[in-house]
Amino acid sequence: MEPDYARIEEDAVRILDLLCRQPSVSAEGRALDETAELVEELLAGAGFETKQLRADDGAAAVYGDQPGASEYTLLLYNHYDVQPVDPIELWDSPPFEPTQRDGKLYARGTCDNKGELAVRLAVIRALRENGGLPIRVRWIVEGEEEIGSTNFDEIVRRNTEILRADGSLWEGGSARLSDGRPELGLGFKGALGIRLDVKLLATDAHSSLAVVAPSAAWRLVEALSSIRGPDGRCRIPGFYEAARAPTDAEKRALAEASSAEEGELRELLGLDEFVDGLTGPALWERAAYTPTSNIAGIATGYSGPGIKTVLPKEASAWMDFRLVPGQHPDEILTALRAHLGREGFGDVEVTPLVSALPATTPIEHPFVQRVVRVAEAVTGARASIFPLGPATLPIIASLQRHLGVPGLSAPDNPTYSGSGAHAPNEHIRLEDVGPAVRFTYALLQDLAAA
Amino acid sequence: MEPDYARIEEDAVRILDLLCRQPSVSAEGRALDETAELVEELLAGAGFETKQLRADDGAAAVYGDQPGASEYTLLLYNHYDVQPVDPIELWDSPPFEPTQRDGKLYARGTCDNKGELAVRLAVIRALRENGGLPIRVRWIVEGEEEIGSTNFDEIVRRNTEILRADGSLWEGGSARLSDGRPELGLGFKGALGIRLDVKLLATDAHSSLAVVAPSAAWRLVEALSSIRGPDGRCRIPGFYEAARAPTDAEKRALAEASSAEEGELRELLGLDEFVDGLTGPALWERAAYTPTSNIAGIATGYSGPGIKTVLPKEASAWMDFRLVPGQHPDEILTALRAHLGREGFGDVEVTPLVSALPATTPIEHPFVQRVVRVAEAVTGARASIFPLGPATLPIIASLQRHLGVPGLSAPDNPTYSGSGAHAPNEHIRLEDVGPAVRFTYALLQDLAAA
Repeated sequence: MEPDYARIEEDAVRILDLLCRQPSVSAEGRALDETAELVEELLAGAGFETKQLRADDGAAAVYGDQPGASEYTLLLYNHYDVQPVDPIELWDSPPFEPTQRDGKLYARGTCDNKGELAVRLAVIRALRENGGLPIRVRWIVEGEEEIGSTNFDEIVRRNTEILRADGSLWEGGSARLSDGRPELGLGFKGALGIRLDVKLLATDAHSSLAVVAPSAAWRLVEALSSIRGPDGRCRIPGFYEAARAPTDAEKRALAEASSAEEGELRELLGLDEFVDGLTGPALWERAAYTPTSNIAGIATGYSGPGIKTVLPKEASAWMDFRLVPGQHPDEILTALRAHLGREGFGDVEVTPLVSALPATTPIEHPFVQRVVRVAEAVTGARASIFPLGPATLPIIASLQRHLGVPGLSAPDNPTYSGSGAHAPNEHIRLEDVGPAVRFTYALLQDLAAA
Repeated sequence: MEPDYARIEEDAVRILDLLCRQPSVSAEGRALDETAELVEELLAGAGFETKQLRADDGAAAVYGDQPGASEYTLLLYNHYDVQPVDPIELWDSPPFEPTQRDGKLYARGTCDNKGELAVRLAVIRALRENGGLPIRVRWIVEGEEEIGSTNFDEIVRRNTEILRADGSLWEGGSARLSDGRPELGLGFKGALGIRLDVKLLATDAHSSLAVVAPSAAWRLVEALSSIRGPDGRCRIPGFYEAARAPTDAEKRALAEASSAEEGELRELLGLDEFVDGLTGPALWERAAYTPTSNIAGIATGYSGPGIKTVLPKEASAWMDFRLVPGQHPDEILTALRAHLGREGFGDVEVTPLVSALPATTPIEHPFVQRVVRVAEAVTGARASIFPLGPATLPIIASLQRHLGVPGLSAPDNPTYSGSGAHAPNEHIRLEDVGPAVRFTYALLQDLAAA
């Protein structure tokens, strides 16, 4: 029986609205218990046997299990936490009051990642009403993804029995690129997130003393300059050595991947062109297979209206390195510390904040091929496959290591390149909910034959 | 007739108490009219003919004029405004409720600069009771010193006739250093305060894009690195060229200046030693005659708990350059802009925020010599003379340019190195009021013979 897709879409938007009213900012420890309870209630209401999984500390992960007609088990991964909302003044509507404008739904978390959670839940509710689940579905919804999934690995390690599955759907992917093609992601970069701290004085001093007392701000600038050259290359010795290049199959996938979002992304960023004039497959290959050394933030001294002439007592920088297969965050951290020591920056304290391994599912894996076939059948368009995404999803390495389960980011996610993940005015286009719902509905049925 | 110094001291503390109850924070535009009226009332009550002087906008400067037995005219400069009180939580008593503890008087403005104003006024009241003023005294008390004396130059330019004088006393100086020596200052560095802004993206982006989109944070770090080398030297071509070295007389003065406060300052900053292990005259010579290029603040991206992996759309830095005689803030600004252009940082916007000329009175000037003699006669101790202070007092250049009047910071200021100007728990030691009163009383009498 053909389901009433319009009703499922409406249900998904209703669930999304509810989820986005929770200000579940993990970096600030806001509303995490409340949101975990809401998610658990929603899963239980959709027929899942639920519980909350925890490591020794940290936010709870909500777990659900529901048998289906076939033995095939699919593991779904989502997160209920979101990024901070700053700079709050750039939002056109309050970030935790979902608002529809011009066919879009605005709120923090709409695209990352409550929208995908809502689509999956609405489809599962519909399948139940339509005769029950065709396969067994297990679901883990964590609350610490935006702070590096700090406890996820431990939670998976302690719960391998109840998490075992034949295939898994991570977050991410895109239901419909602007050229109509569905997007799949088979892996992500790793990441090392750190804070650099320099503290040289007991108190902020009058800046007239800048010539006789040491400057934490200048020390930080010099330390940063030693880490990356003006050519954009990381200067940590050995940084690029272990990085593996894309295989031929990966290069082919990239060459055939959609470039439909490229212009939109460039426009969103306000760029005339990407660095080095990159475009098409070359742009994606650079984005995917070149590791980065990014400054995510710097804070020191006074930064308000006018000027306050102080010699700041301390200075801090936040950095993230995105790592490609072959690189290991622990090794990069060790190399960074050794480098700073050698360059004379032993007074710069390095605190690791995020550590994630790069991880991919091979493009030749049968699970990948099956999902691609379903996506292409539902949309009638060639799937756009990214063998390695430039972002990071630390949970993949945990799922691979402890469960050995293949996975991917599927086109069950109502998001597009202009959605503004992590940025002000995060939103989804309501027109993308339909394709996400149809793909998810079809995939769950198709997997029953796997 | 020998005056009753104890009574003058009591009077000074009473006046200071009254002045410090006014929360005259110029940066916040608080209570400026009320404080100007209070000051005007106090001056009028002490026999001055008064009025309020204004430029086109800004707070009023209170003006007073009172003839004396001799034709000699002394111009006094003070300011009635104070610094903001933040961080308010670090104050042990409310900043605008003067409180005595352990022989100290705590309140915002006690040392900077209402204490000196109170001492001068108490002495003038006593001299009037004791037969009248020996010399003519003119007085200007502005309300914008803590925000850069924005309108002072214009006020002086418009009122040269009523401000003319033979000598002037600026604010600053110290009645009694911890070794008992009186302190004089003959000049201050100039200053150029700027903000550097880099904006490269229309919006903060996910940091996974760091390898294909330009980074404002890295651009700013690279631009800053081009301005100052790790050796602490400014890299702007020509920066040091016009800077004049101290004369032999200035070097002699520095060699004989007191180092009594050096240890206290080092302790306050939490330093084992100053840069390059500097101490004694070498420390003061470096502080005074080396121009600085200081980072007062940097702000970009996310700087809260944890990490937010963004590629920041923009980055800003606040810098102040303290300039020695010979250097001109306009020329340094031009040189900085040309330097950034040449180094490929044409995309870094430079906004000037503060501009002040360095200015000094020559140590050989008869006015200086006379004040030194009085200070040494009153205290019985060798005067400690700083030919050039490392901070900035923009009003000096205005007084020199428009009035051609020699001046200095005299030991009529009941302050010491631990007073905490601009900091929480600002205070004076009550024991320092006596020396300040005696010096001021003696100087006004002595100048009648000039």
